Amino acid sequence: MLFKNISYFSPDGKLIKNAFIEIRDKKIYSISFTEPKGYKGEVIDGENKLLLPGFVNTHCHVPMVLMRGLGGSLSLQDWLNKAIFPTEAKLSADDVYYGALLGIGEMLKSGVTSFSDMYYFSERIAEASIESGISANIALEGFAFDPLLGNKFSIEKDRLIDFHKSFNGLDNGRINVDMTIHAEYTTTEKRCQMLSEIAQELNSNVQLHLSETKSETEGCIKKRNMTPTEYFNSIGVFKNKVTAAHCVYLTENDMDILKENNVSVAHCPVSNLKLASGIADITKMDSKGINVTIGTDGAASNDNLNILEELKLASLLQKAKYGDASLMAPSKIINMASLNGALSQNRHNTGKIEEGYYADLVVIDFSKSNMTPAGDMLNTFLYSAMTENIYMTICRGKVVYKNGTLLTIDEEKAKYEVNKRSLNII
Amino acid sequence: MLFKNISYFSPDGKLIKNAFIEIRDKKIYSISFTEPKGYKGEVIDGENKLLLPGFVNTHCHVPMVLMRGLGGSLSLQDWLNKAIFPTEAKLSADDVYYGALLGIGEMLKSGVTSFSDMYYFSERIAEASIESGISANIALEGFAFDPLLGNKFSIEKDRLIDFHKSFNGLDNGRINVDMTIHAEYTTTEKRCQMLSEIAQELNSNVQLHLSETKSETEGCIKKRNMTPTEYFNSIGVFKNKVTAAHCVYLTENDMDILKENNVSVAHCPVSNLKLASGIADITKMDSKGINVTIGTDGAASNDNLNILEELKLASLLQKAKYGDASLMAPSKIINMASLNGALSQNRHNTGKIEEGYYADLVVIDFSKSNMTPAGDMLNTFLYSAMTENIYMTICRGKVVYKNGTLLTIDEEKAKYEVNKRSLNII
Repeated sequence: MLFKNISYFSPDGKLIKNAFIEIRDKKIYSISFTEPKGYKGEVIDGENKLLLPGFVNTHCHVPMVLMRGLGGSLSLQDWLNKAIFPTEAKLSADDVYYGALLGIGEMLKSGVTSFSDMYYFSERIAEASIESGISANIALEGFAFDPLLGNKFSIEKDRLIDFHKSFNGLDNGRINVDMTIHAEYTTTEKRCQMLSEIAQELNSNVQLHLSETKSETEGCIKKRNMTPTEYFNSIGVFKNKVTAAHCVYLTENDMDILKENNVSVAHCPVSNLKLASGIADITKMDSKGINVTIGTDGAASNDNLNILEELKLASLLQKAKYGDASLMAPSKIINMASLNGALSQNRHNTGKIEEGYYADLVVIDFSKSNMTPAGDMLNTFLYSAMTENIYMTICRGKVVYKNGTLLTIDEEKAKYEVNKRSLNII
Repeated sequence: MLFKNISYFSPDGKLIKNAFIEIRDKKIYSISFTEPKGYKGEVIDGENKLLLPGFVNTHCHVPMVLMRGLGGSLSLQDWLNKAIFPTEAKLSADDVYYGALLGIGEMLKSGVTSFSDMYYFSERIAEASIESGISANIALEGFAFDPLLGNKFSIEKDRLIDFHKSFNGLDNGRINVDMTIHAEYTTTEKRCQMLSEIAQELNSNVQLHLSETKSETEGCIKKRNMTPTEYFNSIGVFKNKVTAAHCVYLTENDMDILKENNVSVAHCPVSNLKLASGIADITKMDSKGINVTIGTDGAASNDNLNILEELKLASLLQKAKYGDASLMAPSKIINMASLNGALSQNRHNTGKIEEGYYADLVVIDFSKSNMTPAGDMLNTFLYSAMTENIYMTICRGKVVYKNGTLLTIDEEKAKYEVNKRSLNII
């Protein structure tokens, strides 16, 4: 596939115009400014189009589309305990599979080419990911739940090892298995340490929720005389490569700990607003050199998986928080959503439009009314684009979405199954 | 036209299912729960659809789509003085006409059926509104600019009167002419009072910007020893029916003045974030009984005219501001965006789905992935809907947008003209 005369986002955050970009063998084969000689494959006219590195959704519970909109006006603790946990207790493995298919489809439509997920029956999320073409770092929830809580989803080490053995590294690392600790308040020190050791043994990333709410953070300080960040640090969790979701209530010292330990932050602005958690200070995190990335969270607190809304808000909220309209310019946000995301997933061969990198790409179309005039393309993309402006999503060189149609997912079947199954669990 | 078995938003803010709603002679003719006998016109199957009152965009400068994304990272004062004002000085009447056509099309696609606007060459905005079918309260900027500033757009009273005579009340009040004072800091007391008197003479509404930024508000206090609200009140502006845009920096006393004088507030959350102005406290305004409405502002500070983003943010920002996820529930936000908007425009026969009201309506389709499962329809609409979920927009009984196509605007021509013209002015 060859993009002809296309504008693209360069690794140093600039808009480059009139490039010829050839995709071959899943990768970006060449970038030039004259037509490659002898090329005979498909040509895509790049006029009025912008090529961006595919977005990495670094915090998701994808099957939660089954519970879209559930507990719409509850705070995090009530939402979890009164709406989400009782519903999740009724989930089957097949429910998770169809929820994952539908949710992955939604993500592909908004330009997501890779995601990080933590949930249950994760074998089925892996299965849906493999079929769809998306890359994924998938964690299986349960081991770090304190078994004393009687959680249906508590699992033991052998189950984790099995999951890792079956799925880690599949298709040249397209599917990776991560470990997960749900959060400080849903587990015990002992289980955290065990999980952390398993992750080191398997050389797996760790995904966790960190200081999402004020009450979580204050509760931890009261109980342990440490912030959640200090606590996880003290028991060795950050010896792993960690992605911490939310981070709404961090102290300066917490941020320094995250930076020192190369912990990535998954910023989820819509979910943090909807559950009334607050606004994470990604301006300060970014200025300290922390690897800030972008996530949608699950559809039960968003209530869609359209990452474009997160990108726009990640920029807008910081401008208002600091009273400074120059903050979080488009190139910075696009980097957070692509390269930084890939780095958080430990993927060092994706997230940039550069020769030799995997062709995880999204093509933005500027021909519709809401993108007219295009003006500064990066600016217009960030503040005006909607999913209907996404012309094409490419995962490792394969077109998985084009002009309204998902090419690897039977969307009608996924919708039918999710509708039917959601009635059974809610 | 008959909607069969459709869900709709009732005047008391509830979701009513399985209704038959007949549109006849521009109005909602009947609402019942059995099929009207002898009906022979077009029938629209309401399965998986939600009928809402059309949205009223109460603060817009619609031709600013010509400057989409201009000055992307500047604060309000720099954005106005360095980017917007110099560009606007180059605008022609034809530029305004094509900008208005494109922008009205964008609004119709997001379910807007009426808008309030203040700009220049407003005769051409009225012309575009008349053609498109949308309702509009249109103000002609200029009279309240202090002529001493040498603004190209300064006008005198006879021009205002002519504009009013030509367009006010057209098509049974579909087009109304409002008066406007740009803002406290761009005019003089004398001009404000004169404008205010003209508005009273003509029985016109007044649109203005109020306490949009901290510096505007503090500057006024320093200069006049009064807040902008106290100032406008002291010189009699609020004797008119006023819609005040933004209102980010109001004191308790300011809010009491607005309430006492029946001033409507046009809340523009995206623009307020993008220009780093802040977050207006619509929770407190609403609790005081102020008529809070929703606006997009112009596309140069948004950067689209998709009112769905404003609705979602109007809810999310208050939840986070107050740390209370129960605030600004869907029914309240939908009312702000429809009924309250209509009241701010002095339209007492629109904004509700009730027999005898004008059929300004929007049909939401729940069949796409991002609306599956529908769950609580009002909740899923507010937090998940994107413009691609808008099936149909109806202005006074006329279908102006259906399933991706604008029926009253030549969208390709509008895009072509806006592209061409924006190159000349920027």
